[in-house]
Amino acid sequence: MTATGLPMPVPAAGLPARVRIHEVGPRDGLQNEKTAVPTDVKAEFIRRLVAAGLTTVEATSFVHPKWVPQLADAEDLFPQVRDLPVRLPVLVPNERGLDRALTLGAREVAVFASATESFAKANLNRTVDEALAMFAPVVTRAAEAGLKVRGYLSMCFGDPWEGPVPIEQVVRVTKALADMGCDELSLGDTIGVATPGHVKALLTALNEAGVPTSRIAVHFHDTYGQALANAYAALEHGVTVFDASAGGLGGCPYAKSATGNLATEDLVWMLRGLGIETGVDLAALTATSGWMADHLGRPSPSRTVRALSHKES
Amino acid sequence: MTATGLPMPVPAAGLPARVRIHEVGPRDGLQNEKTAVPTDVKAEFIRRLVAAGLTTVEATSFVHPKWVPQLADAEDLFPQVRDLPVRLPVLVPNERGLDRALTLGAREVAVFASATESFAKANLNRTVDEALAMFAPVVTRAAEAGLKVRGYLSMCFGDPWEGPVPIEQVVRVTKALADMGCDELSLGDTIGVATPGHVKALLTALNEAGVPTSRIAVHFHDTYGQALANAYAALEHGVTVFDASAGGLGGCPYAKSATGNLATEDLVWMLRGLGIETGVDLAALTATSGWMADHLGRPSPSRTVRALSHKES
Repeated sequence: MTATGLPMPVPAAGLPARVRIHEVGPRDGLQNEKTAVPTDVKAEFIRRLVAAGLTTVEATSFVHPKWVPQLADAEDLFPQVRDLPVRLPVLVPNERGLDRALTLGAREVAVFASATESFAKANLNRTVDEALAMFAPVVTRAAEAGLKVRGYLSMCFGDPWEGPVPIEQVVRVTKALADMGCDELSLGDTIGVATPGHVKALLTALNEAGVPTSRIAVHFHDTYGQALANAYAALEHGVTVFDASAGGLGGCPYAKSATGNLATEDLVWMLRGLGIETGVDLAALTATSGWMADHLGRPSPSRTVRALSHKES
Repeated sequence: MTATGLPMPVPAAGLPARVRIHEVGPRDGLQNEKTAVPTDVKAEFIRRLVAAGLTTVEATSFVHPKWVPQLADAEDLFPQVRDLPVRLPVLVPNERGLDRALTLGAREVAVFASATESFAKANLNRTVDEALAMFAPVVTRAAEAGLKVRGYLSMCFGDPWEGPVPIEQVVRVTKALADMGCDELSLGDTIGVATPGHVKALLTALNEAGVPTSRIAVHFHDTYGQALANAYAALEHGVTVFDASAGGLGGCPYAKSATGNLATEDLVWMLRGLGIETGVDLAALTATSGWMADHLGRPSPSRTVRALSHKES
């Protein structure tokens, strides 16, 4: 028996010819993993991801170490990777974080807002509007310094305390981030409850409110196995930026489930099958996720990583 | 924190209002599980699936016990469930199997063909055309006896020996089964390599060859995490019959991977989110899959089952 290796490329009508993957493994992935990863392993992880063809790799977070101890080494890590010839956004929670990022030569930053009051309170101890007020000077100063700014919006489909989140509520906060000057808005399904019709309805409502699809990225979680179907629905709507985590690293600690971020490999498999360019070498990426899984001492939750690794062994 | 419980129903344009799930757990699922399951547990499993709202449950297989020892108790099992008020198809490999099914009062049977020569040889020790010739009298006699007949077609997208399978080859064998008198054709992605464009292209080619979508079911495997995205693409094409396995039981032993059949719960989650009727009670189904996972001594591979079970604990 020979391995099939890759899916047969058969395009579907009306989809984009190329998409950009915003790789979140080193930041969103490792921040939610229990095992401590040494700084040099993180740097090597980022280098391997870039070598596998990823052109945007979210490198780390300048959050206070008290809140995210896994990324407390941001000051040591970032200089090791900042000269890589790709986009390397870093998360900044506030102006203090932005100062640290600017000092280290970051060229792109991201802020992390919530669509719901409950999660804003839990994650930032602020109301939604208080959080937006905190981000406004961060976004303004970053833009003035010539940096690209991404606005994350979490709990866009459901919230563990509030249940389903009204679309108009998500539109209001997304539009506020857009008007503030965020170049890109990443819509997060933090607890993984979204389904394709909901995705399309939110995207349509955002367009109607004046936020064009070209500024929107989607960030799906696989808690209920829905992430890739949702990504396909977003593709059909014209979205061209997809957040994913190599090997399915990480997840939301509030979702209380073994599964989290959409695995980059599962996404790449689908995109390759659709004949959509990503620039990613799936074999190199799978090898990288296997290498990181060994460091973490547990198998990758990505089905593609497991299936391809099994074939090699 | 309260559990969200269920996705918010947001329909997508152009999808069917209702679909039928063809539950394959007791047959395709258990046939590929290593742990032996007692006959009375299998009967209870089927009763619980019916109580959870499933209207078609493939009950067992009248294959020679030498080939599928897990289902060697078909003669004992089927009488325990045959009076349930739902469709209870059974797999029959040949005329001898059909005789056994007829004797026991089966009202619906299925034959299992291959789209590729390699798998026909491996699974049936016959060429594709020899296998079709073997099925012809089974289908004819079943139809004469007033039974519904389903034709399974495996390896419709890729084959572990041959790689990608040409669409025209799949169309030829599907059409042969349709012309033979199979009421329904179930297109199997046995090794899980399909992607949404490939799914739509095959469905379109079948329609052009005279096989209407109303006679087509789809049977996806989650080996590379693609099953639900493919199901969504099939829904968009108008397919209304979806094969799935409660709790993600089973899989193809040739795929050499931990993952197999699309989990019924993951499918139901998506369909509920899309506002599409299935008649299935997700909580009852999840509880049933948890109960079976306990019997098998391992967690369910269904992400929805794991996420919902975690919430309860």
